[in-house]
Amino acid sequence: MLSKSQIKVITRLKQKKYRVQDGIFVAEGIKVINELLESHLELQQLFTTVSFGTALEKEQLITEAELKKISFLKTPNKALALFKIPQQQAIPTNQFVVALDNVRDPGNLGTIIRLCDWFGVEELVCNTETVDCYNPKVIQATMGSITRVNVSYIDLESYLKASNSPVFGAFMDGDNVYKTTLPETGILVLGNEANGISPEIEALVTNRIAIPRFGALQATESLNVATATAILLSEFKRGK
Amino acid sequence: MLSKSQIKVITRLKQKKYRVQDGIFVAEGIKVINELLESHLELQQLFTTVSFGTALEKEQLITEAELKKISFLKTPNKALALFKIPQQQAIPTNQFVVALDNVRDPGNLGTIIRLCDWFGVEELVCNTETVDCYNPKVIQATMGSITRVNVSYIDLESYLKASNSPVFGAFMDGDNVYKTTLPETGILVLGNEANGISPEIEALVTNRIAIPRFGALQATESLNVATATAILLSEFKRGK
Repeated sequence: MLSKSQIKVITRLKQKKYRVQDGIFVAEGIKVINELLESHLELQQLFTTVSFGTALEKEQLITEAELKKISFLKTPNKALALFKIPQQQAIPTNQFVVALDNVRDPGNLGTIIRLCDWFGVEELVCNTETVDCYNPKVIQATMGSITRVNVSYIDLESYLKASNSPVFGAFMDGDNVYKTTLPETGILVLGNEANGISPEIEALVTNRIAIPRFGALQATESLNVATATAILLSEFKRGK
Repeated sequence: MLSKSQIKVITRLKQKKYRVQDGIFVAEGIKVINELLESHLELQQLFTTVSFGTALEKEQLITEAELKKISFLKTPNKALALFKIPQQQAIPTNQFVVALDNVRDPGNLGTIIRLCDWFGVEELVCNTETVDCYNPKVIQATMGSITRVNVSYIDLESYLKASNSPVFGAFMDGDNVYKTTLPETGILVLGNEANGISPEIEALVTNRIAIPRFGALQATESLNVATATAILLSEFKRGK
């Protein structure tokens, strides 16, 4: 049986300040939890309506009604697990890195993490204003990809200043990405949903690229940040 | 002042059966409404807290409190318009066509319509189980692109059977899309979020393609349908 204090400790993890304070995040659903259990992440506790048969000493069987009290989902999905937030790792140099500048939407961040995983990008760096990757909506949207992509929150301006890698950013007036030779290592910056890349970061972009628009003159102003990431990562990787 | 019956007639347009019955759909926000006003779509009525200065005979000034009563948005955005659903147009042959098979998520359909607009794809055909493009969430997600893409709901199986064009579909065991010569005309089929392309439609696919996965063995199982569409449309158009 779940105690009132357990319910309180779990549900407050919806807020970033408690995730940071407690060093814990929430994952839900058998599929996502299984992917996380098979990774380097450390399970803190598992609340489930069906036994997983693993990590039994950390498993607590609960009822559907109890799950409903702690779940962040509209339709709770059999189990909820608490995992420890891993320590931020050093960012290796000489790798291809995706960098996010003020990406706010959890669904977009989740999709970008899945894309990094798909295209073999192991390093994702985010400025501190980008949405927290341990936000429950991001964890659900990544479908387990979070275990295979190293996400770091940093001072993006300082990071780019200190780096020797070429910095790519997408702008309407950039060079046609389809006709640009793209290197194997470098940093690809994606900006905010509404405002794009911020002026401080734009000043540090060394290679301005653009995804050409094929539609009529009046066409849509911009692509969504997740679809732009899909097209750009495909371009960086397709020739390799 | 809005009457009770006006409120009822507008709010029930959230349901497809009333949109079909009345031949009317809802668009919200000044930017989206302006894009629709500039298109071939016919305005039925405009409810707004600020005058648009156009189509004045169809404009009704309302208060913020009234807007709240008819809006489908959490944060209503100054105006709500009713437009007539246009008659379905004939689908031209000898064009590049995107076809959707059971796409259910309004956000995904909205993103795919924006991508068609960006890449100059004028024809989007959907099987009748695909989410309605006049769903308010789709209209908001398209950001006006709906005015530049001709969306048709059809019996997809019969359509593909009757077509002479090559039919492309993405499957894990398909040919590497980066190494495939893609034609200027053809039909690109995208499938359901969870189940992919249905068996009846798969049987009609003439060219099986795949987006290669660059990550580790354990990598994410599939891309989201909207990001897959982004990458595939980019591949079809990049060489042109």
